[in-house]
Amino acid sequence: MDLSARNQLTAHVKNVKSNDISAEVTLDVGGQEMCANITADSVKKLGIKAGDEITAVIKASSVMLMK
Amino acid sequence: MDLSARNQLTAHVKNVKSNDISAEVTLDVGGQEMCANITADSVKKLGIKAGDEITAVIKASSVMLMK
Amino acid sequence: MDLSARNQLTAHVKNVKSNDISAEVTLDVGGQEMCANITADSVKKLGIKAGDEITAVIKASSVMLMK
Amino acid sequence: MDLSARNQLTAHVKNVKSNDISAEVTLDVGGQEMCANITADSVKKLGIKAGDEITAVIKASSVMLMK
Amino acid sequence: MDLSARNQLTAHVKNVKSNDISAEVTLDVGGQEMCANITADSVKKLGIKAGDEITAVIKASSVMLMK
Amino acid sequence: MDLSARNQLTAHVKNVKSNDISAEVTLDVGGQEMCANITADSVKKLGIKAGDEITAVIKASSVMLMK
Repeated sequence: MDLSARNQLTAHVKNVKSNDISAEVTLDVGGQEMCANITADSVKKLGIKAGDEITAVIKASSVMLMK
Repeated sequence: MDLSARNQLTAHVKNVKSNDISAEVTLDVGGQEMCANITADSVKKLGIKAGDEITAVIKASSVMLMK
Repeated sequence: MDLSARNQLTAHVKNVKSNDISAEVTLDVGGQEMCANITADSVKKLGIKAGDEITAVIKASSVMLMK
Repeated sequence: MDLSARNQLTAHVKNVKSNDISAEVTLDVGGQEMCANITADSVKKLGIKAGDEITAVIKASSVMLMK
Repeated sequence: MDLSARNQLTAHVKNVKSNDISAEVTLDVGGQEMCANITADSVKKLGIKAGDEITAVIKASSVMLMK
Repeated sequence: MDLSARNQLTAHVKNVKSNDISAEVTLDVGGQEMCANITADSVKKLGIKAGDEITAVIKASSVMLMK
């Protein structure tokens, strides 16, 4: 299975913070910090926890540039 | 000026491809490839070209995880 | 590999229309029409063509409701 | 009033879960499950509850494909 | 019919620019300029043209803040 | 530093509501109400509070039109 999303970054999970609906997953991508806001149910379904190797997926139309 | 977007990644521009409306900017982020789909007008306004050091900005709610 | 995106809909590709940068893929999801706007490069990379069985993936935070 | 969003799917509400800010609405779309993450205030404003017939609205640029 | 999207701004269309797939609609919102990137098909379907009074619709999760 | 996002609207903060993960910031844009859903951490990091003059930033691909 291959995904159309053009951004698929190898990352490590640094921290997971959840309430009943939302979760915030902090990632390390080659020394830079990233943050994903996903549902608490997805965190449970994928069993995401600190230390995991994970892929951050971002559609190209969601990326802005600052220069 | 500080931006609420939680993902601000230092990147280098590898390639820029534009038509009259859309543009696709290929980036290198610490050895990983990224792709931003922005308007052709933004490419002109910011003067984005191969070799630029640039920041890729992504809202946390636009990041998915794959494990 | 499992994806955090909460919406993964089985669909059939009805039509693909591309220019040099953007592509529009028309889908049938259980008799309802959907439309995905992805990059032309992703259409080539995945070899998407009319008749394909495919999965439409949408993050829960991208879904609005109308009542 | 007509909306530019290319995806407008007829759905039924299966479940609504809210906290003070966020809400998660589970939908049935022709036998497939979908999930919308909207604000708790929108759930109240539209009076969304299990059993409602509702339209799920998604912009074409928010749809990815997996094959 | 009411929409869950929390941002519904009254606007005027200043300009429409289309290619075969994408369109860029420039808007005036109380003296401030906005820009919507929608499909060329949606521009045709809604008959959007300069001078139209129109509503710009944005999901709350797509709004960032800069201070 | 200039940002590719085509929508940068001058606004005033009317209200801020947060839980441990998410925050909802209500804005006034030239007399029209807007709402931004960002992380609670971004609200703290930028020190966003009622009365602030702020810029609402929206990517053109996140704007829909209703006519």
